[in-house]
Amino acid sequence: MTATPSFQAIILAAGLGTRMHSATIKVLHEILGKPMIGHVVEAALQAGAGRIIPILGHQRDRVQSYLDRRPYSHQIEIALQQEQLGTAHAVFCALDSLQDRYPYTAILSGDVPNMDAPRLKAFFEATVASGKAVGLVTAILDDPLTYGRVLREDNQVQAIVEHKDASPEQRALREINAGIYIVQTSFLREALTTIMNRPTNNAQNEYYLTDLIALAADGPGVFAWIIDQEECIQGVNNRLHLARATDFARRRINHAWMLQGVTFLDPSSTLVETDVVLSPDVILHPGVHLAGQTSVGTGTRIEANVQIRDSTIGPHAHIKAHSYLAAATVGPETSIGPFAHLRPGAQIGACCKVGNFVEIKNTRLHDGAKASHLSYLGDAEVGKDANVGAGTITCNYDGSKKSKTSIGAGAFIGSNSALVAPVSVGAHAYVGAGSVITDDVPDRALGIARGRQRNIDDWADPE
Amino acid sequence: MTATPSFQAIILAAGLGTRMHSATIKVLHEILGKPMIGHVVEAALQAGAGRIIPILGHQRDRVQSYLDRRPYSHQIEIALQQEQLGTAHAVFCALDSLQDRYPYTAILSGDVPNMDAPRLKAFFEATVASGKAVGLVTAILDDPLTYGRVLREDNQVQAIVEHKDASPEQRALREINAGIYIVQTSFLREALTTIMNRPTNNAQNEYYLTDLIALAADGPGVFAWIIDQEECIQGVNNRLHLARATDFARRRINHAWMLQGVTFLDPSSTLVETDVVLSPDVILHPGVHLAGQTSVGTGTRIEANVQIRDSTIGPHAHIKAHSYLAAATVGPETSIGPFAHLRPGAQIGACCKVGNFVEIKNTRLHDGAKASHLSYLGDAEVGKDANVGAGTITCNYDGSKKSKTSIGAGAFIGSNSALVAPVSVGAHAYVGAGSVITDDVPDRALGIARGRQRNIDDWADPE
Amino acid sequence: MTATPSFQAIILAAGLGTRMHSATIKVLHEILGKPMIGHVVEAALQAGAGRIIPILGHQRDRVQSYLDRRPYSHQIEIALQQEQLGTAHAVFCALDSLQDRYPYTAILSGDVPNMDAPRLKAFFEATVASGKAVGLVTAILDDPLTYGRVLREDNQVQAIVEHKDASPEQRALREINAGIYIVQTSFLREALTTIMNRPTNNAQNEYYLTDLIALAADGPGVFAWIIDQEECIQGVNNRLHLARATDFARRRINHAWMLQGVTFLDPSSTLVETDVVLSPDVILHPGVHLAGQTSVGTGTRIEANVQIRDSTIGPHAHIKAHSYLAAATVGPETSIGPFAHLRPGAQIGACCKVGNFVEIKNTRLHDGAKASHLSYLGDAEVGKDANVGAGTITCNYDGSKKSKTSIGAGAFIGSNSALVAPVSVGAHAYVGAGSVITDDVPDRALGIARGRQRNIDDWADPE
Repeated sequence: MTATPSFQAIILAAGLGTRMHSATIKVLHEILGKPMIGHVVEAALQAGAGRIIPILGHQRDRVQSYLDRRPYSHQIEIALQQEQLGTAHAVFCALDSLQDRYPYTAILSGDVPNMDAPRLKAFFEATVASGKAVGLVTAILDDPLTYGRVLREDNQVQAIVEHKDASPEQRALREINAGIYIVQTSFLREALTTIMNRPTNNAQNEYYLTDLIALAADGPGVFAWIIDQEECIQGVNNRLHLARATDFARRRINHAWMLQGVTFLDPSSTLVETDVVLSPDVILHPGVHLAGQTSVGTGTRIEANVQIRDSTIGPHAHIKAHSYLAAATVGPETSIGPFAHLRPGAQIGACCKVGNFVEIKNTRLHDGAKASHLSYLGDAEVGKDANVGAGTITCNYDGSKKSKTSIGAGAFIGSNSALVAPVSVGAHAYVGAGSVITDDVPDRALGIARGRQRNIDDWADPE
Repeated sequence: MTATPSFQAIILAAGLGTRMHSATIKVLHEILGKPMIGHVVEAALQAGAGRIIPILGHQRDRVQSYLDRRPYSHQIEIALQQEQLGTAHAVFCALDSLQDRYPYTAILSGDVPNMDAPRLKAFFEATVASGKAVGLVTAILDDPLTYGRVLREDNQVQAIVEHKDASPEQRALREINAGIYIVQTSFLREALTTIMNRPTNNAQNEYYLTDLIALAADGPGVFAWIIDQEECIQGVNNRLHLARATDFARRRINHAWMLQGVTFLDPSSTLVETDVVLSPDVILHPGVHLAGQTSVGTGTRIEANVQIRDSTIGPHAHIKAHSYLAAATVGPETSIGPFAHLRPGAQIGACCKVGNFVEIKNTRLHDGAKASHLSYLGDAEVGKDANVGAGTITCNYDGSKKSKTSIGAGAFIGSNSALVAPVSVGAHAYVGAGSVITDDVPDRALGIARGRQRNIDDWADPE
Repeated sequence: MTATPSFQAIILAAGLGTRMHSATIKVLHEILGKPMIGHVVEAALQAGAGRIIPILGHQRDRVQSYLDRRPYSHQIEIALQQEQLGTAHAVFCALDSLQDRYPYTAILSGDVPNMDAPRLKAFFEATVASGKAVGLVTAILDDPLTYGRVLREDNQVQAIVEHKDASPEQRALREINAGIYIVQTSFLREALTTIMNRPTNNAQNEYYLTDLIALAADGPGVFAWIIDQEECIQGVNNRLHLARATDFARRRINHAWMLQGVTFLDPSSTLVETDVVLSPDVILHPGVHLAGQTSVGTGTRIEANVQIRDSTIGPHAHIKAHSYLAAATVGPETSIGPFAHLRPGAQIGACCKVGNFVEIKNTRLHDGAKASHLSYLGDAEVGKDANVGAGTITCNYDGSKKSKTSIGAGAFIGSNSALVAPVSVGAHAYVGAGSVITDDVPDRALGIARGRQRNIDDWADPE
């Protein structure tokens, strides 16, 4: 069996999207934490695209800057559309960027974020198998709205008519054009040159990419791939659409994780972003939001409303309600929260406890260490099995620079202590409650720094 | 074109609502933080009503007290219904309060909270244009439940028959009476006098307001306005209805904001109350609740589960997850939370930072000031660019009175300090970590108040 | 009228449930905090079952351990199915455990958690009234999926055909077998012996319990009880089903509480577990989760995202947003939170205030006591009307043992104090802000323990 040839993908991303009412171009609006164009590029790459040609116009620097920071940036070649003369013109602007070593070119929309890689791959393979020059995705809708309608004769696709140009009879048709195409690269060059060299002839005075279909129908043939799930091809033109597309993406992800053994107490209120990796027997309570590059090990329970971004959570951990984690790691069998805040660089070992109202930043807790209540640990190292008492604060900032605090294995920091960095508390050392520790405490020593108590009798007024 | 004449509005609000199982009368139950009667009154005023006549009975003092505290209280004239003899009797109790300078009188229900001002205005104008004496709102329902049915002959409305009095054939009718009327004031006086001076003749032995329709049909004519969205006319009789009406109101508000450029990550879990004002490019994460008189500036992101009431949030601010704000102001580009609590009188300037586990009450932070961790600032003023260290507490209460703390511009408060008010820390002054500051610290001075550290070696038992 | 005879109930609970992809057997997966088998057993008992015979196989020790710890454990008699040869074989394994003093035996599935007690009771009574030997629950589904189909002739049930064995015509039937039976005990013994003593004859080579129906149809008769709500009989085979069953259970509970006078601001995001008891005029904000054995008194408002487990909340209390309570009691008119954490043994009296970032464990607050900010109270007693200042910490743990703190009535603990247990502060005594209290403070005395302040001028660099 011959390997399916690969393809290159053009992505239409030049439009501002005025109905978004935004200072940000439409394709940079996010679905589950990722700009729409990111979803489209990644789906194309996963479906087998060898290179991506985004067509940029408005805010092209912002879009390019986003794409440049992706791991796949070497597969991107930007094309520019200086003025917007229609969809055919947009693709025409990309012709110079096409490489003929790819026999097929996909044309995708940067504002259709939910066309997934498996479907795109299936569509590509079906188009190749059809032998036709153009494949297009269509959908049968109960309400075809303002989509372009697919005109068929003897069941063969003849043309697309845009809604604005359609007759009442044509508007009654329910098969619509999703705006997603696979085209033989050679035919694409030829057809677009034809379209751009003749006058426009439509309600909007634009060069229509959909004229491609009539040209192909008259020549090397058109293949229509009717999609099974219409949400996959819905475009985003306003924030209502954005919310709907987000909801669909969210439900699709949650559905897949449930079938792989993740319990969602309430999938309708749980957000798991695209790149998150879960394990069987993870339990997610309502309102959990797992974002960015986050992974969670087996048997871990994440309670209500926990927000986790770019973090690695080990197996059999317990993240209690209302916690907030970013760029942190949590070891196996460790308990976090409720109301814990792990900031970037928090590295919590195995069998640790980080309790309520504790903030940890750029700090490592070795296995078995505890910080159970009302503490701030920043730029610190906490040894194995050390116990950080309630109300402990590492004074890591003196107004000009940050310094480091070191707490040894098995040390015990009494409650309400301030550790003025740079400072070190030795292994198995003690700090008395309420102390301000400015000098190092040796191993196994007691450091204490507080005023002596005196009582003044009869202070209260007689009643 | 002649200006549309204004109208006065009667609101039926005397019933207790036994199916609510509540110590509170039905019309005071809230939809999105506002009693139902408040929604009805405001819709009437916005639709152009010149004055409002609520008909009160049960708990009339509580309802009156609510209305008296509204900005529109001067437009309210209460009518009393001492005993409840039916809807016609209720309106009859308001006749003395009607003013004939208003040619039209609306009759509204205090438990139908989602009839919005634009629709009410359109209904009023259509009734006036019809030239008929009575306009009524109807709806075509798949399941007409126990609503009164609209009887038509030759397509003209003849009468309303209550569900309890309806024949099986009548119950099969799907057009129902929504209980919302616009009536020529003169006809209303005349018709109600007729109704109240003849015996009742129905299953409930009550004086039916709906008899108005048959009287008008026999005389000056009836105009039926079929509503386009049935949720707008749904009444609330129990908490299930209350939840549904809340959900509808919530979705309608969110829908409108989305079309105006607000991003909702999950509109189904986000509550934006009626009087809240948002801006384009505001981003609302799931579980956010914006209540009361709150406004949010453009580009501001509000993370998950943040609760904000009666607060003003500037543009490009960032309110992190789980924060709780009431009667606070937050300046532009300021970051709040996660887990921050701004209480009434918190005034946070531009480019400030209020971090986790920080509570602020009746305190002003000038631009650029920071209180990043585990602090309580009450009755204080914090100068420009001052830094309040972790664990700082203003001791503003001595058991009998509250006093004020003043922190100068550029001051640095070391961690875990207590500032015993009344006290002042000067501009660019320092406070040493762990200090209890009871005396003023001059500008640029260091104030320090803590015990000296001593270490006791070999405190720990040998292992 | 003769009392309806009671019944015994077999519960099929031996299967692992491979599609759950779990280390835990299917029937121990939870719906609203209770294992599915717990729901089934409790519904059977509430419907009148005198005893329960769970048939266990995989992980039988874990299931038995769960059941042994229930209050109804004396009504349980475990039967074992060593190898899994089909549903008839499973029930066959229970025959020795059946008692003939129960004329009827219910056969229930441990993975059908939403068949509620009232319906089960109605089904039982209808079967008894029918006089037939076997009653089965059926449902008419739009999409019969892979359920067994009910074959009828002259409207009489003749047999069940499993989906895998069904012809296309049979698969077109929409009446399905829910797998819930009431069988005369004597007939059950007889029929199962017949089934197990003849060869299997089906696609799966298993002994089918559904053959019972054909045997009864040929003899003492079959009674079919068509259920009114299909969600009640939906089985759980994967986590998607589990989420759906949870959602249905949740909505059913919330619906019932709304009709009894509880306000849900957003029922779709609120979880109230099965055993929770609410009162009229309780108001639940979005995202609230009430778990375990929790009760809430009338007029109490519980704000957004509050998590409460196994706690007793008095009337007219106010639990503010984001609080987290477990095994606590809260008195009338007390205010808790926002961001409060009440751990097991927290006993908060009437008219108390527990404010933000306060953690309370194994501690009693007498009426009127306050701990408003940033405190940890563990193993303590706080007297009537005492005021615990911001940042107070009870140092209840010295690294080896826990000790007790006692605060007298009317005492005032200054902010940022550490109380080193065991220690006692007397009635109406004061503690100065920032003190570390290691010795008892007598009644009405002032205890103070802190360093003296000194100021060092011109500490800051000149600018």
